[in-house]
Amino acid sequence: MKFSEICDRLGLTVETSLSHQPDLDPEITSVGAVDAATAGMVSYIEGAKFAQFVAKTGASALILPKDPTLQSQASDRNVAWVSVADPRLGFARAIGLFYQPYQPAPAIHPAAVIDETATCGEGVHIGANVVVHAGVTLGDRVCIHPNVVVYPGVTIGNGTVLHANCVIHERTQIGAHCVIHSGAAIGSEGFGFVPTPTGWEKMHQSGITVLEDGVEIGCNSCVDRPAVGETRIGAGTKLDNLVHVAHGCQVGKGTVMAGQVGMAGGVTIGNGVILAGQVGIANQAKIGDRAIATAKTGIHSDVAPGEIVSGSPAMPHRLFLKVAAIYSRLPEMHKTLRQIQKQLGGGL
Amino acid sequence: MKFSEICDRLGLTVETSLSHQPDLDPEITSVGAVDAATAGMVSYIEGAKFAQFVAKTGASALILPKDPTLQSQASDRNVAWVSVADPRLGFARAIGLFYQPYQPAPAIHPAAVIDETATCGEGVHIGANVVVHAGVTLGDRVCIHPNVVVYPGVTIGNGTVLHANCVIHERTQIGAHCVIHSGAAIGSEGFGFVPTPTGWEKMHQSGITVLEDGVEIGCNSCVDRPAVGETRIGAGTKLDNLVHVAHGCQVGKGTVMAGQVGMAGGVTIGNGVILAGQVGIANQAKIGDRAIATAKTGIHSDVAPGEIVSGSPAMPHRLFLKVAAIYSRLPEMHKTLRQIQKQLGGGL
Amino acid sequence: MKFSEICDRLGLTVETSLSHQPDLDPEITSVGAVDAATAGMVSYIEGAKFAQFVAKTGASALILPKDPTLQSQASDRNVAWVSVADPRLGFARAIGLFYQPYQPAPAIHPAAVIDETATCGEGVHIGANVVVHAGVTLGDRVCIHPNVVVYPGVTIGNGTVLHANCVIHERTQIGAHCVIHSGAAIGSEGFGFVPTPTGWEKMHQSGITVLEDGVEIGCNSCVDRPAVGETRIGAGTKLDNLVHVAHGCQVGKGTVMAGQVGMAGGVTIGNGVILAGQVGIANQAKIGDRAIATAKTGIHSDVAPGEIVSGSPAMPHRLFLKVAAIYSRLPEMHKTLRQIQKQLGGGL
Repeated sequence: MKFSEICDRLGLTVETSLSHQPDLDPEITSVGAVDAATAGMVSYIEGAKFAQFVAKTGASALILPKDPTLQSQASDRNVAWVSVADPRLGFARAIGLFYQPYQPAPAIHPAAVIDETATCGEGVHIGANVVVHAGVTLGDRVCIHPNVVVYPGVTIGNGTVLHANCVIHERTQIGAHCVIHSGAAIGSEGFGFVPTPTGWEKMHQSGITVLEDGVEIGCNSCVDRPAVGETRIGAGTKLDNLVHVAHGCQVGKGTVMAGQVGMAGGVTIGNGVILAGQVGIANQAKIGDRAIATAKTGIHSDVAPGEIVSGSPAMPHRLFLKVAAIYSRLPEMHKTLRQIQKQLGGGL
Repeated sequence: MKFSEICDRLGLTVETSLSHQPDLDPEITSVGAVDAATAGMVSYIEGAKFAQFVAKTGASALILPKDPTLQSQASDRNVAWVSVADPRLGFARAIGLFYQPYQPAPAIHPAAVIDETATCGEGVHIGANVVVHAGVTLGDRVCIHPNVVVYPGVTIGNGTVLHANCVIHERTQIGAHCVIHSGAAIGSEGFGFVPTPTGWEKMHQSGITVLEDGVEIGCNSCVDRPAVGETRIGAGTKLDNLVHVAHGCQVGKGTVMAGQVGMAGGVTIGNGVILAGQVGIANQAKIGDRAIATAKTGIHSDVAPGEIVSGSPAMPHRLFLKVAAIYSRLPEMHKTLRQIQKQLGGGL
Repeated sequence: MKFSEICDRLGLTVETSLSHQPDLDPEITSVGAVDAATAGMVSYIEGAKFAQFVAKTGASALILPKDPTLQSQASDRNVAWVSVADPRLGFARAIGLFYQPYQPAPAIHPAAVIDETATCGEGVHIGANVVVHAGVTLGDRVCIHPNVVVYPGVTIGNGTVLHANCVIHERTQIGAHCVIHSGAAIGSEGFGFVPTPTGWEKMHQSGITVLEDGVEIGCNSCVDRPAVGETRIGAGTKLDNLVHVAHGCQVGKGTVMAGQVGMAGGVTIGNGVILAGQVGIANQAKIGDRAIATAKTGIHSDVAPGEIVSGSPAMPHRLFLKVAAIYSRLPEMHKTLRQIQKQLGGGL
């Protein structure tokens, strides 16, 4: 594909080297990271940290931010460039021009075990050894990879993909264009036990899990169903691997959670929230829209909309930066304090 | 089901509105959360935090604590009520009156692959694509959901349930009435490697994992077997999702672990212990009976029976509350300290 | 097996009791932990902490460090002994003399579903319900346990073992003599999304995951593939259960990661690194060769080769020990500071 065609198809182009060097229109055959790219590849520069690579990259073309200096550097090296507002988005689209994801053709494998009361839409793919129980409803173009188990009464919307060995528990409702990655467990029993003098008594989990449209759930993540009512994950929300969503959590739309995030029961999370890796959220806490928690934050109480929090227990991120800087100087502070005490004649 | 019948069947009733308003005996058809319940539902009030909902709930009946004020409020609104010592336990039993968990009928699916040397008790269910290896013994009414793999020499007690896609490794012993949730790995090889000049040499894991009666293991949790001897989880202990139990751990009876708890090798945990989410416990540490660790606690040494610990490294919870409160004031303390130094003429 | 034969076969022997007591050559039938061993067992003493057990163990033979006192104690009790430089390594080898791991015979189960374009080496085992997709290449003596799914274009080297229900995603390259434990997901899609005004847009993950020879990946761990290029794990590196390796991470050789370690995208880890349980590493951080991070460490920036770090944010371990000791005395420091202020007449 000619570089000029890529520029046309990104749908993001602001300016390109073609207006200055119309003859520099290399044939591009693939995409690559800027520090590893070779001739025939298009790559990208994201932020100041990677700007040095304009002078070194082996790529034939670059997706740049709107930066005349970088544009000149690239032109001087005969590297074709296109400037866009968000080079990372540009690169994502460039990958999409070259990469053909593995997509099995519509078919139902003879080794799939499908209950006669289940219903399938048009163009579904059901892989080998998939088990689909009674009363399941699959939308059009649903793709179920091998060895998945779908318990009774589940509904799955159009175009949703279930990767190998994931498990969808009874009565779960999954929207359209969702992706459930390998080994994830959706709609499994919430962890509900009540202490009694003779041990922990199970509280049946009669509720359901609902994933709205466009949700992604990472490998081996778990989204439990509650005792009553719903666990719900809003449209367009994305969860990374090994995330734990307990019974009765309510997660908004367009929220992202990185790997190994965990939340206790009944947590409420707003729209557009970002939770970095290994964040934990306690029982019943409420996280406002567009709040951000940095990695390993331990949230014990509510977080206001738009707030950025860090630390455990969580505090405002700006405060945390100050606290953390002084934390490592505690031995020095302690020594100073003792010297002052001595000077003042007091005893510890 | 009439409200009066529910009261009879809870087995917990202390007092009901029926003695004051015998005609208020609504037909109850389901259970619901107090803030979402509608007519025909029974709900419950747990603690002061939810007491406000007595005045608002749409439920036809409530399970209340022994609280005359709440009883009056409910009666005034013509909401039937039953008071019990533990409303959450009452609600758990109420759910059990209405909810029929999915329970496949006794049968062995033709697509299950069962070694001829395996033995099955009465009334077992073995789902499609389950693989049961040589020398496995299944008790009566064992239920194995699809795509589970049971390695050789495993024994599984009466009434135990294995959910889809879990794996039970060689020689594991699972008691009666256990539940292994989807994707869990039980009796897998412990992480045993010895450093040598030519790399990490594997220490074979020749031991076994034992789960006593009534144990539950959450989705995608792992309970490894040790090099020699046993990893053991005591009767009635419940583990949530994504928990990691390393080789040689000894866990007592009636203990609970929330999501993403992890313990290193050889940890000993007593009876009735509570570990909140994302707690970590170091190698060989001993946790006494009825100890509690709050979320994200990092335990590096022994914890006494009944102790409550928090923080990382762990400390007594009451101390932690004080420490955490001052922690966020470190910048202020640091500033004060410098002012004092200046006042006293010292240099930092 | 006679004790004398064990000494010969360990390949590590420095000195044995046989030179002093040649008639004390007991028949050894198994291995056991020193506090649980009985007659006919060989056990071992690792470090001062377990030295007390020489005087108590029921074992017939012991693997000791080079310590004349322990040797005498054992001889006095008629316990045969062998001294080696590393008793734990000696014990690992002793286990290997007695323990025969479960190893299915070469065969392809009729219920395996293998694409006709896949190629298999000599002596492979493929269990029931395994699914092997198009273009997969399996080396000699590869062992695939039941219900594993191998996506298209994967290559797997000689002698590698895939445990039940793991998933190997498209184009992954796995070397020789690797072990992938139950439920692990290898080569799954990295968590790549770009924010746009209309929501998170997927960045296709066109790269691959490469595991070099001798890598082990624990149960339910995940190693994602990147948008472009490779996620790579070096030869002889071992990962415990529930570990998360994000897209584009580069892990060196002979590194070990304990349970529930997580790393964000693009992390670089050197050779011989040790990451203890629940460590987290932020985006793009670089960890030098032979560095060590203790349990729960949160690493936000680069760590130098050989450095030992602790805490979150991570700091040098020796500093952390001092900081942590003073941390729990913060309330006391705060009180002292206020007293000094009062004494000096200042107001907080």
